[in-house]
Amino acid sequence: MGVGRFTLRATSGVARRGTLELAHGVVETPSFMPVGTAATVKGLTPRDLREIGSQIILANTYHLWLRPGGDTIAAAGGLHRFMAWDRPILTDSGGFQVFSLESQRTLDDDGVTFRSHIDGSTHRFTPENVVAFEERLGVDIAMMLDVCTKLPAPEGAIEEAVRRTTAWAQRAAESWTRGDTALFAIVQGGLDERLRERSASELLPLDMPGYAIGGLSVGETREEMARLTRFTAALLPVHKPRYLMGVGTVRDLIVAVDSGVDLFDCVYPTRSGRHGRALLHDGSEINIRNAGFTRDTGPLDPACSCTVCTTYERAYLSHLFRATELLGMQLLSYHNVFVLNDLMAAARDAIERDAWDAFRQEFQPRSP
Amino acid sequence: MGVGRFTLRATSGVARRGTLELAHGVVETPSFMPVGTAATVKGLTPRDLREIGSQIILANTYHLWLRPGGDTIAAAGGLHRFMAWDRPILTDSGGFQVFSLESQRTLDDDGVTFRSHIDGSTHRFTPENVVAFEERLGVDIAMMLDVCTKLPAPEGAIEEAVRRTTAWAQRAAESWTRGDTALFAIVQGGLDERLRERSASELLPLDMPGYAIGGLSVGETREEMARLTRFTAALLPVHKPRYLMGVGTVRDLIVAVDSGVDLFDCVYPTRSGRHGRALLHDGSEINIRNAGFTRDTGPLDPACSCTVCTTYERAYLSHLFRATELLGMQLLSYHNVFVLNDLMAAARDAIERDAWDAFRQEFQPRSP
Repeated sequence: MGVGRFTLRATSGVARRGTLELAHGVVETPSFMPVGTAATVKGLTPRDLREIGSQIILANTYHLWLRPGGDTIAAAGGLHRFMAWDRPILTDSGGFQVFSLESQRTLDDDGVTFRSHIDGSTHRFTPENVVAFEERLGVDIAMMLDVCTKLPAPEGAIEEAVRRTTAWAQRAAESWTRGDTALFAIVQGGLDERLRERSASELLPLDMPGYAIGGLSVGETREEMARLTRFTAALLPVHKPRYLMGVGTVRDLIVAVDSGVDLFDCVYPTRSGRHGRALLHDGSEINIRNAGFTRDTGPLDPACSCTVCTTYERAYLSHLFRATELLGMQLLSYHNVFVLNDLMAAARDAIERDAWDAFRQEFQPRSP
Repeated sequence: MGVGRFTLRATSGVARRGTLELAHGVVETPSFMPVGTAATVKGLTPRDLREIGSQIILANTYHLWLRPGGDTIAAAGGLHRFMAWDRPILTDSGGFQVFSLESQRTLDDDGVTFRSHIDGSTHRFTPENVVAFEERLGVDIAMMLDVCTKLPAPEGAIEEAVRRTTAWAQRAAESWTRGDTALFAIVQGGLDERLRERSASELLPLDMPGYAIGGLSVGETREEMARLTRFTAALLPVHKPRYLMGVGTVRDLIVAVDSGVDLFDCVYPTRSGRHGRALLHDGSEINIRNAGFTRDTGPLDPACSCTVCTTYERAYLSHLFRATELLGMQLLSYHNVFVLNDLMAAARDAIERDAWDAFRQEFQPRSP
């Protein structure tokens, strides 16, 4: 097996069905990655995730750097052993988190200095030390440090972000040492197609094992996101995995798969679950706290085969949220991640059958 | 099988090893019941509880009466199906909860009127409607409505509580209809041995399938509790199960088994777990939030074989609590219930081998 090797198995329209070989296993794409920011997917155990069928999860460099820190994770033998997850892990670089804290960071050409949201202590990320941290964690996919700009932003700011992201990508690629960690570059460029084109054209010569579309899902409209996703995905190499960062509603996933994207992550299913919101297989969403569910003896999602839907009724789940019981958060998080995982499995099947377009159209009307 | 039948299998000193046959399965005693107040054991799934080996859990009439109410649970087909737990369930009568809310309740000979802690609405418990509610839930063991008095209390108050508890027990026994629900009486009497004797002597002629020791673990010293447990247990029938309500530290369980008690319940293991406190097999307790554990690569409890201790290191559990992640609460609750369950399994084994006294002495020095 070639670590980081991506094999395109089938296409249907622009949608792609692939296989990504990583150090801790194979990821069938398109695939959704649940978010385990702080080395745990909130509300779910590793066993839950295996049962759901999650193939790869995401963790976050910014959060793990600050707490518990690289020494603690290294002492455990790496992130997989620390959190008892033996399938692939991708770590985001922390760029997105650092640039979300506008007032607390100072950017220069060499890197970015920022303050911890936990204790106010000062830290510094450079392209090199972020790769070194991710390699120390032993993750399967490491994202490079990029400059991610909130939208709307003046063109000058985005252009500057693209320039720095390219320069940092070159440095990250040069500092990359572990063959079992696939290092991905991130295309920036905001909503400007010329800048997206420039960013991609500057990063492609690095010949990284994968490319991400960054800087979306940060304040733009859904239409803008769809347009830029489609535009940017088309710029990326056909035979490498494409990852759209931070995207995770049913509707957005469908649009992105339809644009030829292979990997996704989002806190949406788990965050929604903790707040009592359930995603249904038809693309709609319900809030289990609504009064109408207190006596509802039906399953959470009649179209779902997950253990929550086959075990409990809506009235029980409603009760758990009204009584603020932990189990409610656990069960809805489980169901929501299952729905997105199931959606990706169905998408893979539809692409294999060259029936993607019909599949996609089912999800148009009711999606949130 | 005779529902509610208790068979004494062995004794070792005063400690007893028995088998209690219930509608949803057999309970090997001594046995600890995790508390699922609102139809969920906080932080644990039914699968977790089965894996831990819990044979029976407790739920609470006061809480379920107020929310979600009997109609909702009956519509689900009973409490077992509502919460997806197919092993035995015992419901406490709600007496303890009602009498904890001193200012909000009015007691008379017929019953007790109280206000909901949730919405201030007015409700009334009588011996009859509590049994009817528990039977509607379809539980395996239903506790009678008793009058439970906080300690310290003037002798008049305890005497009055004993009188009413007896009168209510007679009415509860008369209103009892379901053969698959075993109705247990509760001995009151505070710290007064004469009143304990009177309460027991008044309740024994009812010939209920089981007897509980109530009104302890409500403010008295540990020594007083031990003395009254031993005194009261000795008053109860040899061939019926004895249940000490609300007791659950390692040390108190040992003392109670040593007094000939068979069943226990307490929120202690799950509540401690949610707050980062872990019970260890040696009877000591640690707080995983303590700074010393942040780099500790050892298991939570070196003497424990539970999945938490064989999977995770202390540094990870420490991290989860520092990051206020749900998984921390789940894992420590799991471990703590496992410890008490394991303790009861070891006690059963020691009693069978007539080696109870040696076993008991191991737990004396370090117990919290």
